[in-house]
Amino acid sequence: MANPNFTVTRVTITPILIQDAPLLNLQGVHQPYTPRVVVKVETQGGEYGVGETYGDTEIIEYLKVFSEQLLGLGVDQSQSLWQVARKTLTGEAIRTIDPGLVSGKLSRQVTGDNTLVKVHNTAVSVFEVAFLDALGKLTGLPVHTFLGGKIRDKVDFAAYLFWRFADHGDPGLPTDDWGAALDVPGIVAQAERFVRDYGFKSIKLKGGYHPPEIEAEAIIAVKQRFPDHPVRLDPNGIWSAETGTRIAKELDGVVEYLEDPTMGLQGMAEVHRATGVQLATNMCVTSMDQIPEAVSLGSTQVILCDHHYWGGLRATQHLSRICQSFGMGLSMHSNTHLGVSLAAMLHGAGAAEGDLHACDTHRPWQREDIITISHTFVDGALTVPDDPGLGVELDEDAVARLHQRWLDMPEMRIRDDVAAMRKFQPGWRKPVAPRW
Amino acid sequence: MANPNFTVTRVTITPILIQDAPLLNLQGVHQPYTPRVVVKVETQGGEYGVGETYGDTEIIEYLKVFSEQLLGLGVDQSQSLWQVARKTLTGEAIRTIDPGLVSGKLSRQVTGDNTLVKVHNTAVSVFEVAFLDALGKLTGLPVHTFLGGKIRDKVDFAAYLFWRFADHGDPGLPTDDWGAALDVPGIVAQAERFVRDYGFKSIKLKGGYHPPEIEAEAIIAVKQRFPDHPVRLDPNGIWSAETGTRIAKELDGVVEYLEDPTMGLQGMAEVHRATGVQLATNMCVTSMDQIPEAVSLGSTQVILCDHHYWGGLRATQHLSRICQSFGMGLSMHSNTHLGVSLAAMLHGAGAAEGDLHACDTHRPWQREDIITISHTFVDGALTVPDDPGLGVELDEDAVARLHQRWLDMPEMRIRDDVAAMRKFQPGWRKPVAPRW
Repeated sequence: MANPNFTVTRVTITPILIQDAPLLNLQGVHQPYTPRVVVKVETQGGEYGVGETYGDTEIIEYLKVFSEQLLGLGVDQSQSLWQVARKTLTGEAIRTIDPGLVSGKLSRQVTGDNTLVKVHNTAVSVFEVAFLDALGKLTGLPVHTFLGGKIRDKVDFAAYLFWRFADHGDPGLPTDDWGAALDVPGIVAQAERFVRDYGFKSIKLKGGYHPPEIEAEAIIAVKQRFPDHPVRLDPNGIWSAETGTRIAKELDGVVEYLEDPTMGLQGMAEVHRATGVQLATNMCVTSMDQIPEAVSLGSTQVILCDHHYWGGLRATQHLSRICQSFGMGLSMHSNTHLGVSLAAMLHGAGAAEGDLHACDTHRPWQREDIITISHTFVDGALTVPDDPGLGVELDEDAVARLHQRWLDMPEMRIRDDVAAMRKFQPGWRKPVAPRW
Repeated sequence: MANPNFTVTRVTITPILIQDAPLLNLQGVHQPYTPRVVVKVETQGGEYGVGETYGDTEIIEYLKVFSEQLLGLGVDQSQSLWQVARKTLTGEAIRTIDPGLVSGKLSRQVTGDNTLVKVHNTAVSVFEVAFLDALGKLTGLPVHTFLGGKIRDKVDFAAYLFWRFADHGDPGLPTDDWGAALDVPGIVAQAERFVRDYGFKSIKLKGGYHPPEIEAEAIIAVKQRFPDHPVRLDPNGIWSAETGTRIAKELDGVVEYLEDPTMGLQGMAEVHRATGVQLATNMCVTSMDQIPEAVSLGSTQVILCDHHYWGGLRATQHLSRICQSFGMGLSMHSNTHLGVSLAAMLHGAGAAEGDLHACDTHRPWQREDIITISHTFVDGALTVPDDPGLGVELDEDAVARLHQRWLDMPEMRIRDDVAAMRKFQPGWRKPVAPRW
């Protein structure tokens, strides 16, 4: 008999806009605000569960359709979300979404047949987290217990360095005290602050903004400053395989791994074959069905799992076992996120077997949160909580405030780093890969 | 804070001997009794959990060493059993096991470096099941909830046909009313009884006993008698790749899949390439580390998971996702087992995503059980229980009785189908593959 307390009685989907820093990447610069979405699942037993994910408009539209099928399900049935996803994809309701919105907008993010797969993974993931959070609160168990129990008490994270402007170029827009980092000394200074304030023991530099030689110089300088810290560089696939090979050779022995030096499985395999340097990806392998080809080509040695679009915490565990079977390492990818996502990452990474590298997180760049007590990094790590559910409490006032901002600023709802960059460089266009 | 109720306070390992039918396979005939082992994990909260697995002497010895590390662990930490396994393998205690016993006996079952891997998977599995059973009872949740919830209410099983003798050749030994099945009509009659009494909708024939032509004739006859039932034939790798190819061509369109027609990944790949017939295995891929080569060669299209030696129910889920990623199907392998193993299979298969074929089970051949209410197949299926834990209650009296038998019959503790066959054919020797 199903436990009636577990029954989902209400689902709320709340888009929010959160402040973001002027961080640079291959496309341009982060906007002053970026969308996220918060889902809240209420149960007959009176406890709620919460999830956070990417807030692009098409995801929000999809989540609305998806969530209509959740009433009456039990929060103990998180695996059934895959069936809900299949029903959503083949059902009538999805046709009520403006087809232009679905196909047009989605294709901006990812291309080809994977588009809907990724969005439905995203929906499963955010509701899996919310279901597990609610189930945990209803049973007094932490989320990781439903993943077999944590196998580490702490999860290591990496400092996430960015080339960046000092501000968004307009005094009315939110700012911070990090200052600009547009040259090598600026990046080293940023690394120093990350290590001093948060104790990070691994360091990653988001690349793709400067020519590869400068980025290589920067990561070498960071490594010289912190010789005991593993370092990584991630140009997001904007180099040619030839350039990737050249830079990989230069960074052999410097980097722990190079992330997506070039686009596509073939190019990645070429760079690895030519250099032996470990390559990581969150771009050319982003779902289970891409693994076989990546494995047979030898394109990647570390997969950067993003539980948001890999299908959730259980999917993260599956991926960790797949990586183990194929001799690959695992880390976690991060995009701009707040504390609910971070809590989910903690449970997922805390229960992931295998060769887990320090996880990425943008969290220190965010000055806002949607939980009552934000996470505090100690020695670059966070403790996997044993409190019921995710172990965090939603700050409803903050959610309401950030949702109001979302209502007030329709122009910010679709993150567009290219457009944001035009403020600084009016002729800026989205670079075509390979740029270098 | 860890919940003190979850703490393991006592572990009991009870070897038992259970009656078995005179079923034939490539090695010979099943003994009248076969060993199993029951583990019982007691907790500070007063609830216990139970697991059942292969009862070979070396497994029992290994479980004893393994279990010494479990006191003080929480039953909510089933994933930590992998760490226990690693400690056991590298620790001092394992050296207290007679090295001849470990290396000598193990090599009889499986060969090469996988020996200890398989045994440690077996230990993790049986204690994972016992931990989840206890955790479920302590929290009021069924085991499948800790696997993300069941995604099917029922699990289909297959009739498991065997060539067999009428009895064990000695009036003092246990017998049953199935009678002999040594020719094609005998096998068809056996299939009829299985379908009539249990409602099975899929049918498997264990092969490897008769020459391949006769076994092909038998499975064709079964298919003609039950044209709507998927059928399978499993000669356990005793044919050459050439014979496998010939028989596969003959059975193309007849069988749902052919199981282990020949030994080894290369031979399997050869048979599949030449015929296109779907091949299943529980022999050439028996652990995660063997998957990459199997995938790259295309050796198998269906993996027959045995949660006992794949590492447990969570490992079964991982395998199901790996199979999904690689476009392979999944089913479950069975060896002689009782109701605790069957209950674990139900939760595992009930929560396994992907292309799940009807699972194997020897259960109808067993006339004894160690649970108070044995499972009853309806329409060839069993319901995935929603009661706390595994949903079965251990029959302590039965365990005590079957353990006494184990104490009384040391000669039966090691299953030896070859020796058992000599009673019927005094000159019988273990066939060397390929026999045909």
